[in-house]
Amino acid sequence: MISFCQFGAGRIGAIHAGNIARHPGARLLHVVDVDANAAARLAKEHGAQASGREAALADPAVDAVLIASSTDTHAELIEAASRAGKAVFCEKPIDLDSKRVAACLAVVEATGTILMVGFNRRFDPHFAKLHRQLRQGRIGKLEMLAITSRDPGPPPLAYIKVSGGMFRDMMIHDLDMARWLLGEEPVEIFAAASCLVDPQIGAAGDVDSAVVTLKTASGTLCQISNSRRASYGYDQRIEAHGEKGMLRAGNILESSLEYSGSDGIVGEKPLHFFLERYDEAYRRELDQFIAAVTGKTAPPTSGADGLRALALADAAVESAKTGRAVRV
Amino acid sequence: MISFCQFGAGRIGAIHAGNIARHPGARLLHVVDVDANAAARLAKEHGAQASGREAALADPAVDAVLIASSTDTHAELIEAASRAGKAVFCEKPIDLDSKRVAACLAVVEATGTILMVGFNRRFDPHFAKLHRQLRQGRIGKLEMLAITSRDPGPPPLAYIKVSGGMFRDMMIHDLDMARWLLGEEPVEIFAAASCLVDPQIGAAGDVDSAVVTLKTASGTLCQISNSRRASYGYDQRIEAHGEKGMLRAGNILESSLEYSGSDGIVGEKPLHFFLERYDEAYRRELDQFIAAVTGKTAPPTSGADGLRALALADAAVESAKTGRAVRV
Amino acid sequence: MISFCQFGAGRIGAIHAGNIARHPGARLLHVVDVDANAAARLAKEHGAQASGREAALADPAVDAVLIASSTDTHAELIEAASRAGKAVFCEKPIDLDSKRVAACLAVVEATGTILMVGFNRRFDPHFAKLHRQLRQGRIGKLEMLAITSRDPGPPPLAYIKVSGGMFRDMMIHDLDMARWLLGEEPVEIFAAASCLVDPQIGAAGDVDSAVVTLKTASGTLCQISNSRRASYGYDQRIEAHGEKGMLRAGNILESSLEYSGSDGIVGEKPLHFFLERYDEAYRRELDQFIAAVTGKTAPPTSGADGLRALALADAAVESAKTGRAVRV
Amino acid sequence: MISFCQFGAGRIGAIHAGNIARHPGARLLHVVDVDANAAARLAKEHGAQASGREAALADPAVDAVLIASSTDTHAELIEAASRAGKAVFCEKPIDLDSKRVAACLAVVEATGTILMVGFNRRFDPHFAKLHRQLRQGRIGKLEMLAITSRDPGPPPLAYIKVSGGMFRDMMIHDLDMARWLLGEEPVEIFAAASCLVDPQIGAAGDVDSAVVTLKTASGTLCQISNSRRASYGYDQRIEAHGEKGMLRAGNILESSLEYSGSDGIVGEKPLHFFLERYDEAYRRELDQFIAAVTGKTAPPTSGADGLRALALADAAVESAKTGRAVRV
Repeated sequence: MISFCQFGAGRIGAIHAGNIARHPGARLLHVVDVDANAAARLAKEHGAQASGREAALADPAVDAVLIASSTDTHAELIEAASRAGKAVFCEKPIDLDSKRVAACLAVVEATGTILMVGFNRRFDPHFAKLHRQLRQGRIGKLEMLAITSRDPGPPPLAYIKVSGGMFRDMMIHDLDMARWLLGEEPVEIFAAASCLVDPQIGAAGDVDSAVVTLKTASGTLCQISNSRRASYGYDQRIEAHGEKGMLRAGNILESSLEYSGSDGIVGEKPLHFFLERYDEAYRRELDQFIAAVTGKTAPPTSGADGLRALALADAAVESAKTGRAVRV
Repeated sequence: MISFCQFGAGRIGAIHAGNIARHPGARLLHVVDVDANAAARLAKEHGAQASGREAALADPAVDAVLIASSTDTHAELIEAASRAGKAVFCEKPIDLDSKRVAACLAVVEATGTILMVGFNRRFDPHFAKLHRQLRQGRIGKLEMLAITSRDPGPPPLAYIKVSGGMFRDMMIHDLDMARWLLGEEPVEIFAAASCLVDPQIGAAGDVDSAVVTLKTASGTLCQISNSRRASYGYDQRIEAHGEKGMLRAGNILESSLEYSGSDGIVGEKPLHFFLERYDEAYRRELDQFIAAVTGKTAPPTSGADGLRALALADAAVESAKTGRAVRV
Repeated sequence: MISFCQFGAGRIGAIHAGNIARHPGARLLHVVDVDANAAARLAKEHGAQASGREAALADPAVDAVLIASSTDTHAELIEAASRAGKAVFCEKPIDLDSKRVAACLAVVEATGTILMVGFNRRFDPHFAKLHRQLRQGRIGKLEMLAITSRDPGPPPLAYIKVSGGMFRDMMIHDLDMARWLLGEEPVEIFAAASCLVDPQIGAAGDVDSAVVTLKTASGTLCQISNSRRASYGYDQRIEAHGEKGMLRAGNILESSLEYSGSDGIVGEKPLHFFLERYDEAYRRELDQFIAAVTGKTAPPTSGADGLRALALADAAVESAKTGRAVRV
Repeated sequence: MISFCQFGAGRIGAIHAGNIARHPGARLLHVVDVDANAAARLAKEHGAQASGREAALADPAVDAVLIASSTDTHAELIEAASRAGKAVFCEKPIDLDSKRVAACLAVVEATGTILMVGFNRRFDPHFAKLHRQLRQGRIGKLEMLAITSRDPGPPPLAYIKVSGGMFRDMMIHDLDMARWLLGEEPVEIFAAASCLVDPQIGAAGDVDSAVVTLKTASGTLCQISNSRRASYGYDQRIEAHGEKGMLRAGNILESSLEYSGSDGIVGEKPLHFFLERYDEAYRRELDQFIAAVTGKTAPPTSGADGLRALALADAAVESAKTGRAVRV
């Protein structure tokens, strides 16, 4: 039985806290949040207690810390938790600055504790099955990969401004997926981006539509397509093309219902957003973390994964500015 | 908080016990089974106790009884639980004999307790959405209904022999679905059946492939197709045709993965069987029962629903024998 | 080069005349129609001449006669053409009366000429592929067959009145498909029918919605579903279930275009009606007829096929009236 | 009635000759080919005559010239035919060298004759419908476009060597599609490419797998994906994403047949290659050319379209070499 302290009682925090509470191998001891009321509510819902940061980290009963607080707190909390000897699961990103991430990872390494970064999509059963079949050789050598990822709508402008920009905030998920699926590191990245969805996003210095090309040392090519807005919902698709065929993972629809009428054949929309779409992924992610904490397996994602995805996002930003492919 | 006593610690019992234990508005107090070891294991898993039947029903802390034991015990347990003032959820069927069912329902009615029959498919979110859209008039007047229901493989011969036969054991689900979706009672039923899957089923006096036609007073036509074996898994589909279009609910596949290769485009199979396919339905069914026990809603299925579906199954048996449509 | 005389210059006649004119192995010599203007127009379009019946049948240059005139003329024209030593292709049905059909077939048999009946669906490449795979054993022994056939809208009431009724006019196609796909004769038929689409159809003594169950000697079960109206277009589907799997042939859509928006994912409707849907089937049907006339193959459909399908339709009418399965 | 002289009696020549011969508004007078036997065979099949180049172009009965000979003959034949006052339809490309193309177009312009370039995909009814809906605003402003185009297998190495390379030979089709669908000119292009399918292609100095990113002045982004090999057949898909939704045109499958078995649900492969996939497009392309020759419409594709697509292909070659986006 792994005992958790969780930082962050917001939307994604509620998901994690519920998963911890319902997990047969875990229990939730502390919830910490700058909003004491939010912490108290979430703690109460799951039989935990709202605690201060120091007390929670000092509690010897705590085995693991789950960090779902705002991005600017991640690196410091990881360091503090690692120094306290706790295993850490942290929502992506570790930090928006690569140097800060590297410094944080050095601390973790020095303590020898476990750090797992929340790249939730790797744990989606559909994508995981695609990954497994890739590795098992169902399509032979992978030659071309295409990742489509569109949000149903842009986040609030206030969030955009502190998000680190579309490449570091949103595409970082796809860059991680690309690394994971390619099975080798990209050595070159090219990006092109526009502000097409909302001019206020452009005025804030960000983009809302972006495409990226990655190339690996073996020549495998990967295309990523991102948009902050899709009127039909959350669009999350992967297509892998290889010497012996193609593997695709499509969207998961709200239901299997289909209506045929005078306007055509109408199917349901994709599940609306990440909370619905990756519901099962969040559970499996936690399973894997607990398995790592109990020593059954290595953590499936590491701090280094977080750092490399961020380095690719940084390179994408540079490429979009310069119009040149960037070596990484 | 509704406290449950559960009868039956087998395959479907394990599903229900887990759902009760994880439900925020319920707790599991007793598990009763003729197999004391099975009862003890399941009770322990969910923090309940293995009890004898009399003690469990006599416990004043028990609000509700969930019956998932073998069919031949259902009617008697319903009566005993009702007389003890407990609300009852019973897996279908109440009994294989209509007269016995009627007698049991009379006991329930006299006690004024709640009885809900486990027609799980009504609670599947896909079928429930189709039902809702039918009632909301998306296709106008319903004219033709088609229900396809095929199991991945036949049950053990020993079960076949005590099952009451394919119409009462398997098609009863589809007959209930037909009643529910049609929104009016069938007045005529015709059945044709064969033993095509396994000659031992025929030797045991049963059939393994059957089709039924229902007609309502308003002339709506319904076709049902049943097989005990589908090499591709559990096939559960509904198609409703009306004046303004068609609504279909298709199979739920194991994943969204699709492989394209030299043999064609290969999608995944349907979810294997009822435990996987109706996973969510079992949870929603329990929600509805708890809502009924706490007085929030009426039970969505009643003993009378169980009796009417059985009457249709009986009529189907007669029609298959005589080659005539039977008025019901 | 096979030279044709064609009877009938209406909608389906125009299709056949065009196919003959474009066929590398055929030419169109005469067009005969009670409407002299229609005959002249169609003849001119394809470099043929509008002729009277006697002259056309007496022309020694004519090898083959294609009959696409009104149903009440079919039997007599078949007899006249056969007696003139011409090979005959006739649109279904030969006649609405089984005795008349039998008499006509006796004449054809006596003359030893070729007669092919236009069951166009057998020549659809999708259904033909399904049929081929059935015979090649892809799903092992066929156990259950389901045929769905819905027209986009009912024909004019004037046509309904002389059509012989829904079973003889519309379902006869599905009864022929059932015979062809089952690979053995049905021995029992049950029908249920309603007037749901248009009360005027009922007032004219006909039905517009009908379902049929067939059973063969080996126990294979077949369900047919017919409606005179489908708001989404012409619905033509076949599903065959066997010991080793299921084969399905779905609708052919107007295009591969798919729109995803806030209302869902919208695909195109099925091709509107038989002229569009069976465009290729009409060409292949003619190919087969010409191959038969030139002695390369036997005609794939015979007068006996027309008679048997009509006998099933007659039995369906009787069953719908009596509520009993009819032995055939 | 437009009279044609056709140059080229190979695979694509056979398609065009057949379409001309069957077209109600056209007739085929001459077939010219360096292989006199091939010319004679094709001419005979369609009632034309095999002729020498000079005689054919000098024939005053000839209204239009269709050029389907090898690429190195295109520019010169266009010039000769234009000077002879004939309308010209030429298979893409006009030439592999942009300067040669420009010189050729100058000749055509001076003669005032019609020149249409065979970008066959624009005439595919599925893509044309997508294009029409884009222009009609079904998805509002177009933001992102994705074109997937994979051949079933690479052409012979001998062809690769004279093809001008993958970008000019294969991707030129997709670059034309991009221009046509975007509705505005790309101003920037980036390309990345690899040799993954066959090392001999690399040894010949070419690539077999390539991706391109285009950006227009308004910021619209377009991704193209090309491979010389797809084990599942010819993969031709378009996806357009805009402010109000997404439009997709998928592959056309060999048939609607679907098999469900123990390995999953197996659909048919896409139509094998361009002859099958664009069968209807070739007919519609000819219709449009004939309409232009008879003065009914302007030619839907022009020499300038051929030149611009080639300029994009040239820029892609440069970008793939330099790793920089190229302004066009």
